[in-house]
Amino acid sequence: MKTVVLSVPLLFATSIAHAQDPLPSWNDTAPKKAIVAFVEKVTKEGSADFVPPADRIATFDNDGTLWAEQPVYFQFAFAIDRVKALAPQHPEWKTKEPFASFLRGDMKAALAGGEKGLLEMMTATHTGMTVEEFSKIVIDWITTAKHPKTGRLYTEMVYQPMIELLAYLRANGFKTFIVSGGGIEFMRPWTEKIYGIPPEQVVGSSGKTKFEMRDGKPVLVKLPAIDFIDDKDGKPVGINSHIGRRPIMAFGNSDGDQQMLEWTTGKLDKAWDEAVAKGWTVVSMKDDWATIFSPTK
Amino acid sequence: MKTVVLSVPLLFATSIAHAQDPLPSWNDTAPKKAIVAFVEKVTKEGSADFVPPADRIATFDNDGTLWAEQPVYFQFAFAIDRVKALAPQHPEWKTKEPFASFLRGDMKAALAGGEKGLLEMMTATHTGMTVEEFSKIVIDWITTAKHPKTGRLYTEMVYQPMIELLAYLRANGFKTFIVSGGGIEFMRPWTEKIYGIPPEQVVGSSGKTKFEMRDGKPVLVKLPAIDFIDDKDGKPVGINSHIGRRPIMAFGNSDGDQQMLEWTTGKLDKAWDEAVAKGWTVVSMKDDWATIFSPTK
Repeated sequence: MKTVVLSVPLLFATSIAHAQDPLPSWNDTAPKKAIVAFVEKVTKEGSADFVPPADRIATFDNDGTLWAEQPVYFQFAFAIDRVKALAPQHPEWKTKEPFASFLRGDMKAALAGGEKGLLEMMTATHTGMTVEEFSKIVIDWITTAKHPKTGRLYTEMVYQPMIELLAYLRANGFKTFIVSGGGIEFMRPWTEKIYGIPPEQVVGSSGKTKFEMRDGKPVLVKLPAIDFIDDKDGKPVGINSHIGRRPIMAFGNSDGDQQMLEWTTGKLDKAWDEAVAKGWTVVSMKDDWATIFSPTK
Repeated sequence: MKTVVLSVPLLFATSIAHAQDPLPSWNDTAPKKAIVAFVEKVTKEGSADFVPPADRIATFDNDGTLWAEQPVYFQFAFAIDRVKALAPQHPEWKTKEPFASFLRGDMKAALAGGEKGLLEMMTATHTGMTVEEFSKIVIDWITTAKHPKTGRLYTEMVYQPMIELLAYLRANGFKTFIVSGGGIEFMRPWTEKIYGIPPEQVVGSSGKTKFEMRDGKPVLVKLPAIDFIDDKDGKPVGINSHIGRRPIMAFGNSDGDQQMLEWTTGKLDKAWDEAVAKGWTVVSMKDDWATIFSPTK
């Protein structure tokens, strides 16, 4: 490793890791053992499996991996709330699909129109403003909106075992990244506070932006055009574009993560042999996690 | 700042900064004073201009800013050398422009064909292989090719004062990024070793890539299609895409950097007042630098 940045936390980590269980919300089942064994192996200087801190890259899907994703993707709940908030400025939405159905709360009818309508809805709610205006809209929503079933803030529906895992990996010199199909601009305003992952370590789907001077101030405007879809085949592409090296660990929960996991294990010729040679480690939320969400405050 | 990563080096930095001049290759002229005054201001806890470490983002153009760019962009010298290396596999290049002229060493004739020919030459030398194969080609070249005038390795033509500046900023809790019109895949293989800037902190122009399985191994293939041009208006777009927040310092040397500097100073309402209110700090290599290149070993 060529900088001080990551090697110093590593020294801290060693003493922390031995002082107490860094993953208290995980049951002592196979996945936890596999993770700890892998981390101990790649951080053990002089061992054949040692990985320098600079190459300790771990990537995490977001929806369904770091936080819940039911009954709908939380970004989709955000979009529906934005349709409601913007409706007074769009009287035409009362009769225009899918907006009319969303406003009536009829999800089934709203989705019946298929992708075209949804894209129109995403465009109406996610573009036209500057990136900084959009960031503020996201912050306003995510600090107040409540999940329909649990009544919690959406950020209180992050998986506690994964929060511990992120911290454990960072304490062992890993750099943790989100690689999600979700919108990059939707995640970045809050990932540092909630996950300890700064904006520059968030990879996601994105729309095009345009540089402009507005009232003598430089701004970036969010355009109604898709730039990149960070899903399936797109995940290795996004990882290469934003990170520029292969992860040595990756975590996902759906078909959209398959190529990211393949891309990651494609590098692991020597390390993680038990886990990888026999396939990926599968975590059961029911069997392997003792706690799912942290208690509400 | 929410992680340990950047605050720890900061503590180190304070003692280092006072122990000795961190910028020995800079003359004690106005630019050095402006830089040091700015850094001291934003790192002074409790001061009105204090910037938390997480927001201490500094971006650097590469060609002409961190290393030399004469007589041609070094990446262009790489492309010419690749044409020569690949010529035996392309007998048709003997009569096809601009390849024929490059092979004869007639730069003027080669450039006469304009952009279309150059794009063809970049496609022939920069695409078709996997990203990891390309990375190896770059490393092989950059560790052996010599600059035509100085006889130095190209990586020995980095500007010593800027190397010191990068280290000084990082020692003060800054995260340093390259934001260059050059190819992201051309820079990443060597920026960590030469500049201390890891691949994930390099933003540049890029071509499209495609995920594939080759012989059962996952690879990303470099396609003959431009993905993003990180120049002029593109620099703020690239910064937003890769970093997700505005820099508080930016360094460039050409028209291609103007929008990056505007985007950066657009945020500086309070800090860097002397320097910014009166325009950007201009560094003269002749007047403000005592040394340009480090002595060869």
